Amino acid sequence: MILRIGARAESRLLGDVLRMAGNPPVRIVLEGGASAVPPGGEWRFTMRVRDRLTLLRMLADPEFGFGEEFSRGRVTVEGDLAALCREIYTAARRGRGPGWVAGLLSRWLRLTQAASPRGAWSNIHRHYDLPAEFYRLWLDSEMIYTSAWFPHSGATLEDAQRAKMERVCRKLALESGDRVVDAGCGWGALALYMARHYDARVRAFNLSHEQVEYARRRAAREGLAGQVEFVEDDYRNVGGRFDAFASIGMLEHVGAEHYPELARMLRRWLGESGRGLLHFIGRSRPEPLSPWIRRRIFPGAYVPALSEALRVLEQGDYAVMDVENLRSHYARTLACWLQRFEAAQAEAARMLDGELLRAWRLYLAGSQAAFQTGNLQLYQVLFAGRECRRRLWTREWAAREEESASRI
Amino acid sequence: MILRIGARAESRLLGDVLRMAGNPPVRIVLEGGASAVPPGGEWRFTMRVRDRLTLLRMLADPEFGFGEEFSRGRVTVEGDLAALCREIYTAARRGRGPGWVAGLLSRWLRLTQAASPRGAWSNIHRHYDLPAEFYRLWLDSEMIYTSAWFPHSGATLEDAQRAKMERVCRKLALESGDRVVDAGCGWGALALYMARHYDARVRAFNLSHEQVEYARRRAAREGLAGQVEFVEDDYRNVGGRFDAFASIGMLEHVGAEHYPELARMLRRWLGESGRGLLHFIGRSRPEPLSPWIRRRIFPGAYVPALSEALRVLEQGDYAVMDVENLRSHYARTLACWLQRFEAAQAEAARMLDGELLRAWRLYLAGSQAAFQTGNLQLYQVLFAGRECRRRLWTREWAAREEESASRI
Repeated sequence: MILRIGARAESRLLGDVLRMAGNPPVRIVLEGGASAVPPGGEWRFTMRVRDRLTLLRMLADPEFGFGEEFSRGRVTVEGDLAALCREIYTAARRGRGPGWVAGLLSRWLRLTQAASPRGAWSNIHRHYDLPAEFYRLWLDSEMIYTSAWFPHSGATLEDAQRAKMERVCRKLALESGDRVVDAGCGWGALALYMARHYDARVRAFNLSHEQVEYARRRAAREGLAGQVEFVEDDYRNVGGRFDAFASIGMLEHVGAEHYPELARMLRRWLGESGRGLLHFIGRSRPEPLSPWIRRRIFPGAYVPALSEALRVLEQGDYAVMDVENLRSHYARTLACWLQRFEAAQAEAARMLDGELLRAWRLYLAGSQAAFQTGNLQLYQVLFAGRECRRRLWTREWAAREEESASRI
Repeated sequence: MILRIGARAESRLLGDVLRMAGNPPVRIVLEGGASAVPPGGEWRFTMRVRDRLTLLRMLADPEFGFGEEFSRGRVTVEGDLAALCREIYTAARRGRGPGWVAGLLSRWLRLTQAASPRGAWSNIHRHYDLPAEFYRLWLDSEMIYTSAWFPHSGATLEDAQRAKMERVCRKLALESGDRVVDAGCGWGALALYMARHYDARVRAFNLSHEQVEYARRRAAREGLAGQVEFVEDDYRNVGGRFDAFASIGMLEHVGAEHYPELARMLRRWLGESGRGLLHFIGRSRPEPLSPWIRRRIFPGAYVPALSEALRVLEQGDYAVMDVENLRSHYARTLACWLQRFEAAQAEAARMLDGELLRAWRLYLAGSQAAFQTGNLQLYQVLFAGRECRRRLWTREWAAREEESASRI
C-alpha cells in the first residue's frame, strides 16, 4: 500500500493530531517528512513517528494506537516520559476525545472481561507469572508490587514499603493470635510481616503459581511456615473464619460483576465481628463499561469509583471507619519503580523482548502521571462489622506514626 | 371500648412483646396488672405501661408506638434511658422485626418526604426554629448542634466543638483570603471561626430565620459582619464562586432525590479547582425508602449510606481524599447533650410542653445509643477537584493535632 499524501496535507494532519490531543507542548515529527508544533509554538517534548502508516494507525485508533506503536518502537519520545504523559493527560481534558495515552491507560485499567475463576486465572497468570527476577530488578527488596506509604520526604522505597505494612497492621489494630485472611498476597511480604511483627496467623492466597511458590520458600526460610499458609487458589474457594481481612491491590482484578461474590465471602470469613482493609486503585467517578480490547498489561481489570467499591462492604453491612486517598504516595512509588526500571534496562532486555519492555516502561510512566494528575486514585478503606470490638475509628494509630517511623 | 383479656393472656402478650423485641433485659409491667421478664429472668430496666390500650397501641404499630406512648407519658422507664436504648438496639438484631425504639428512630431519620425548597423550609422551620434559649440549655456555648471531635479523653464539650472546627479548617487547608461557602450554617459558629482564625471570607446560608438572625447579630457583635455574610435561603438559590465548601450536618436534610441538584451547585460554586468537606450522619448500608409517617423530630430527613452520598461528589468528578467515621465522637457529644438536657428539665419545661420534652429526651438517648451500636455512622468526607492545588491528602493536619490542641 502506497500512501500518497502531499507535504501540506501531512503537516495539516500532524496539526490535527495535536489539536485532537488538546495541544500538549509536544513537537511531532514524521521521520523524513513534515513536523508540527502546537499553536503558539511552545513545546518541551519531541515525539518521532517512524512513517505515515504508523501515523495513520494512531489516528485510526487514537485510544490504543500510541501505546501499540510506542511498544513496537515505531514512535519514540525525547524527554521525560512520565512528564510527557502528565502533559498529555492534562491536555486531554481540553482536547477532543480522551487523548492517546490517557485513553490507552484508562482502557488498560477498565473492566474488560469477566473475571470468572478460569478467566481470573489466565489474567493473573499473564501479568504476575513473569519471572520474579524481572520484578526484582525494579521493586523493593520485599518484592511489593503495590503503592508504598512515605512517612517523610527522605524515606526510601524500602522504608516506605515497610511503613505501608506497619500502617496497615495498625489500622487493623492487629493483636497477637489474630487470624487474618490476606486476599491477593503477591510475593507474601504483608502476610509474613503480620506473622513476624504481630504474631498473627495468616491464610494468604493468590492465583499466581510463581508468586505462591516464592512466598512459601520465603516463609520456610524465615521459620514462619507454621504461622502463614500460602494457598494457590481463587478467593472464592478459600474457607475459614478470621478476625481480620486485608487485601492490597486485588479488588482491581475482581471485576465489578463479581463484587456480590466477594461480599458473600467477606461475610463468611468475618461474620459480624471482623474488620478489614481494602487497598485498591480507584477513580473519581464510575466509567462506563467497555468491551475488551486486547490488552497486554492488566487484562481483566476494573478500576471502580469509591462508591462502587463500597457496595461490597454495604452488602455485608460493614461500616466504613476510615478512608485515605494515597494517590500521591503511589505516584512517588511509581517514580521509584520507573527510575530503577530504566537503570536496569540491560538486564531487563535479557528477560523480556523489546516490545514488552517498551510497553512496560510506558505503563509505569503513564501510571505515575495518572496518579499525579488525579486520573487515578489510590484508596485504603478500613471497615468493621457491627460486633467488632476493636477500637479502629479514632485514628489513635495516626498519633503513633512517629513511633512507627522509628521502627523502620 | 372495654378490653376483656384474662390475666394469663395478658402475661403471654407481654412475653410476646419481649420476644418480638429480641428479649432485651427489660421487665415490662402493666400498671395494676401482669408483668413479664425475659426468659432466664435477667433484667436491668423496668418499663411501665400505663394501661392495656397503651400496650395494644404499641403492638399495633411497634415501629412507632413506643416513641408515641413514651412521649405522651403513658410508658415510663426506670434506669438509664440511653443504656436501655442500646440494649433494645442490640436485642432487635436477634428479635423479629426492627424493634420498637430502633424502628422508631430509624423512621425518624429516613427519607420521608420530598425536600423541595418549600418542603425543606417547613421541615427545617419545625426543628430549628425552636427558640435558641431551648438549645442554649443543653448545647455548648458556641451553639453547635452537630457532632464534636474530642481530641483527648479529658476534653469538655466546649473544647471538643472548638477542636472540631479547627480540624475542619485544617482538613480544608484554609488560607487567608479563601472564599468559603458554608451550607447549612446553624447559628454560624463555623463560619465565624473560619473568618476569625483563618481570615476567610464566608457566605453561609440556612433556611432557619431564627438561626440566621442569631448568627447576624453575633457577626456584628464580633466585628466580623464584613467577612461573613449570612444568607437566609435554600442552597439552590445561593450564587457565587468559592475556593472551598463546608457543610456540617446539612446532607441529612437534602433528601437523596435532590443529590443531583446539590452536585450541580457544587460544580457551580467550586469548579475544578475547589475542595470541600461534607459532614453528615450516615448508615452502613442503604435503607429502602419508606412513606412518610408523621414525625416530630426530623421531618424530611434521609440518612444515606456512604456510597449514596459519594454519588454527589462523583457526579461532579470530585475525588474523595479522606473519610473519617466519627460515630464514637457523636455518641459522646450526645451523652453530653443528654446530661445537660436532663439537668435543665425545669427550665426546658417552661419552653416546651411535656410531650415534646419527653420526645426530645428519647431522641437524644436513642441517638446516642444508635451511634454507640453502629446503627448510625457519622462521616466527614474531604474531597477535591482535579485542578485543586492544595495538598489535602497527606494528613499533615493529623500530625499537627497536638499543636491544634494547644490552641484550644
